[in-house]
Amino acid sequence: MYIEKINSPEDLKNLGTKEMEVLSQEIRNALIFRLSKHGGHLAPNLGMVEATIALHYVFNSPVDKIVFDVSHQCYVHKMLTGRKDAYLKEECFEDVSGYSNPDESEHDFFTIGHTSTSVSLACGLARARDLKGGNENIIAVIGDGSLSGGEALEGLDFAGEANSNLIIVVNDNDMSIAENHGGLYKNLKMLRESRGASECNIFKAMGLDYLFVEDGNNLSQLISAFEKVKDSKKPVVVHIVTQKGKGYIPAQENRELWHWCMPFDEKTGRSLLETSDDYEDYGTITRDYLLEKMAKDKTVCAITSATPAVFGFSEDIRKQAGKQFVDVGIAEEHAVAMASAMAKGGAKPFYGVYSSFVQRTYDQISQDLCINNNAVTIAVFAASVYGMNDITHLGIYDIPMLSNIPNLVYIAPTNKSDYLAVLDWAMEQTQHPVAIRVPLDTSDNEQVKKDFSVLNKYEVTQNGKDIAIIALGSFYSVGKKAAEIIEKTTGITPTLINPYYITGIDKELLESLKADHKTVVTIEDGILDGGFGEKISRFYGNSEVKTLNFGLKKEFLDRYNVDDVLKANHLTPKQIAEDTIKLNG
Amino acid sequence: MYIEKINSPEDLKNLGTKEMEVLSQEIRNALIFRLSKHGGHLAPNLGMVEATIALHYVFNSPVDKIVFDVSHQCYVHKMLTGRKDAYLKEECFEDVSGYSNPDESEHDFFTIGHTSTSVSLACGLARARDLKGGNENIIAVIGDGSLSGGEALEGLDFAGEANSNLIIVVNDNDMSIAENHGGLYKNLKMLRESRGASECNIFKAMGLDYLFVEDGNNLSQLISAFEKVKDSKKPVVVHIVTQKGKGYIPAQENRELWHWCMPFDEKTGRSLLETSDDYEDYGTITRDYLLEKMAKDKTVCAITSATPAVFGFSEDIRKQAGKQFVDVGIAEEHAVAMASAMAKGGAKPFYGVYSSFVQRTYDQISQDLCINNNAVTIAVFAASVYGMNDITHLGIYDIPMLSNIPNLVYIAPTNKSDYLAVLDWAMEQTQHPVAIRVPLDTSDNEQVKKDFSVLNKYEVTQNGKDIAIIALGSFYSVGKKAAEIIEKTTGITPTLINPYYITGIDKELLESLKADHKTVVTIEDGILDGGFGEKISRFYGNSEVKTLNFGLKKEFLDRYNVDDVLKANHLTPKQIAEDTIKLNG
Repeated sequence: MYIEKINSPEDLKNLGTKEMEVLSQEIRNALIFRLSKHGGHLAPNLGMVEATIALHYVFNSPVDKIVFDVSHQCYVHKMLTGRKDAYLKEECFEDVSGYSNPDESEHDFFTIGHTSTSVSLACGLARARDLKGGNENIIAVIGDGSLSGGEALEGLDFAGEANSNLIIVVNDNDMSIAENHGGLYKNLKMLRESRGASECNIFKAMGLDYLFVEDGNNLSQLISAFEKVKDSKKPVVVHIVTQKGKGYIPAQENRELWHWCMPFDEKTGRSLLETSDDYEDYGTITRDYLLEKMAKDKTVCAITSATPAVFGFSEDIRKQAGKQFVDVGIAEEHAVAMASAMAKGGAKPFYGVYSSFVQRTYDQISQDLCINNNAVTIAVFAASVYGMNDITHLGIYDIPMLSNIPNLVYIAPTNKSDYLAVLDWAMEQTQHPVAIRVPLDTSDNEQVKKDFSVLNKYEVTQNGKDIAIIALGSFYSVGKKAAEIIEKTTGITPTLINPYYITGIDKELLESLKADHKTVVTIEDGILDGGFGEKISRFYGNSEVKTLNFGLKKEFLDRYNVDDVLKANHLTPKQIAEDTIKLNG
Repeated sequence: MYIEKINSPEDLKNLGTKEMEVLSQEIRNALIFRLSKHGGHLAPNLGMVEATIALHYVFNSPVDKIVFDVSHQCYVHKMLTGRKDAYLKEECFEDVSGYSNPDESEHDFFTIGHTSTSVSLACGLARARDLKGGNENIIAVIGDGSLSGGEALEGLDFAGEANSNLIIVVNDNDMSIAENHGGLYKNLKMLRESRGASECNIFKAMGLDYLFVEDGNNLSQLISAFEKVKDSKKPVVVHIVTQKGKGYIPAQENRELWHWCMPFDEKTGRSLLETSDDYEDYGTITRDYLLEKMAKDKTVCAITSATPAVFGFSEDIRKQAGKQFVDVGIAEEHAVAMASAMAKGGAKPFYGVYSSFVQRTYDQISQDLCINNNAVTIAVFAASVYGMNDITHLGIYDIPMLSNIPNLVYIAPTNKSDYLAVLDWAMEQTQHPVAIRVPLDTSDNEQVKKDFSVLNKYEVTQNGKDIAIIALGSFYSVGKKAAEIIEKTTGITPTLINPYYITGIDKELLESLKADHKTVVTIEDGILDGGFGEKISRFYGNSEVKTLNFGLKKEFLDRYNVDDVLKANHLTPKQIAEDTIKLNG
């Protein structure tokens, strides 16, 4: 095996093309080995095997610097830069993250996980080099799917005016996570079909030089192209056409499904996690709600920015929804502005987005949407410590990000009944932009009669005294359990409150609690700084009522164990009860 | 005069071209009349006179819907849609805002003030029309300068795949506020020079149809082009070449200076506000600091996103700085990501940006910058209730937006000495991304010896007891005055604290205050929700110490009087003193 002898890119440089072809197969085997047991981004990495080998063969990393966009296609790069064991040996799986990571290697320059950033980052490395008088190559590797993001287009435009070395490798596999969306993909198709000869060329129109590589899985073609642009004195795009999922038949046949995978059976491609047909989560719950709503009302329109699966819109469902569904591609800013205008125009837009990605569109939420007060419904998914746990994909910052924007109504339902009631109100009202913090609990044992149009009205779910627990959304159940422990331990029945509203406080209720409560506790599933609980503490600051805010510390967590994090933040029901009892005296 | 008879676009439709040419001149006179007395965006509107007339002549507003990007070029539109008196009569000046405004007219669909949003908004109106089965025309008007913004490029890309009526008028005056930056402007030049014939065409590459109008100040050419695209069944770009500042010689000769103007003498073009040569503000202070720093250190680099004036970089200064200055164009996302990578590459990047615009790059600050913990210095200007006062340009939301992002160090100096000390520390350290909240007070009567590398260490500037006042940044002086009133009224000397750090609290100091303080007051120049004071209230929530947070209510203000707003929010020193004394008992 060649791969066992590759400890740094230097070890590549003595191999011939035939040997590197064998290495490619070894790398594919290692990818499938690791991912069938561990899960991860399979198809993107399978497509990039040859290109990554060729890059490291031609360039001199880490002096020459390669920046991988999103970096979920950097597994091959990791194997070639001293981290192969994490793909060959099960006991080393945890040695690497799923993204580029400067803590792992001097060949990684940034921790990256959101798309469309590589060109801008490469521009910065290039400018630093020029200021310092260096002459190394700076290379950005960006997938076609990432090109639709505003930051990527801003970066390309800027690069088009730069006047020194910068190599932008566009990895064109004709896919985003799902299919691509946007006019520029017609141009990529035109370029593929004309073998790069079309005069109408998005990259040239951005002021960039351009080189086309027809087979981006062919080592000789790639090496020859990279050698041509090496030490270029101008920014240049190398457009390589690769096959997403190459070398693993199931992934070649269903590229969307295999973009990212859970552990699977290598022979059949079947997932090792069994799910039954009546499996329900907030994706399927939202999908079913939307389909029913769409059938009744032609103006209902669901919007995604390249992650249709987040609300259960698989390919067949997308077809069924027809023009009542829009995938804008990776373009969160556009999604929110467009949704705002759709509402203004009398339609009923729904935008479903991961908590980690909603922060890509802060200005549009504030300006295009909230200043204009249009009735858009935004469902924020995976907004929880139980959400994705890579440092670049955390879902615990949405409350400070969203809840301090004027006019927005941000609501946290606690379970399925709550969620559907909030969603239905949000879609039908025409007064407010509404964001919904999608909960975790899928139970629906109750009828919700609450009138959500009376803003900032909390619900008292248990009357008590001395202690009040205001437990928000997905952590309402944590508050309920803490209340039970307090009652069992002290005999005091705490008042329990489901606040629903994150963006405003129920002054009347909070005021009334002063009469017979000494301690008010808040619990939220996100960071405390700028969050929900602090607003309650501010309210009681000038009173005799004491407050305790439970939530997460403001920090970037990475690949954490949820239980450990909860304990460290005093967020278990037992800890909350203990702290509360201690304070209440 | 024709203009006096125009009460709606209908009144235009009976005019001939010659009459509309006379009207154009009347409109220019009205623009100069209003702006010479009132200030505003002169040059952009002078260039758009004929195009706006032609749009309203050909299309049927408000059934056909026109969305003006940034909307600072919508003055002519306002004159033609029933609001002419605001440009003809001094007593009516205040009837209109400087931006499009649905509260003023059914011809305005959005309140807009940030750039690059019009195409996305128009896409939303178009989609709503299609869902409802309408057939009106939807028109976006976007300046060339706005094209570099990510949201605009996302919108163009999306439009390029849309399959129904959408007309995008690109108003190409070859200028942003300053000159344009980015490779796509080479393409616009190519298109101008080839009279639209160049096959390499950014709009076609985005999948859009395309029409070129050589003289965008010629009514006949414009009317003919708009008639051609009217009722188009596909998205189409109409590229019109206009002259920014047309018809007013001083504005034609210095288009950057006249992008926006204060009141001026119509004959000479001279500003009516006299400023002396030794005039100093934080623009000139920052400029002088950077120039000195750049001369000593080749790796220092100042970055702007199309507003170089914010830190005093006029054209001559930009030339002097050479490659140590970068204008990325309107591309805030790119600016931050690039700055992060410049720091990673060993340079010392400084990014100067208005508070209102820093929110355009939340995700990049969080992901590209703060996760990677690179040492970028961001100076946030006009972050104050005393900043810009249009609803779309408020500077009072930056604290909740920035201060809850992990790893960022956000510091609020109080005056010039403070500012320069913080700036110098930020530029030289290599440990943290640092944002500086640029203060208002330009006095420099002290030597600052503080070691800013000891994070979150507040400064006690006056030792007292019973009451502690923690007064942040630009409102430190407000706290100082409140302390004086309290002392005069009650004989109690309050402890006075300059906290500097917005992103973390000085637990040790706050803990020590518990010993002999009953009341802790915070004062900040921004909204309270998610802000600085709430963190202090959270800290003291479980203690005997009472807290009062002074700051602004979370709301969108518009064209406000600062004194009125301060009073309404209990933010005068007298009100703060009164409330504090009342609570302290």
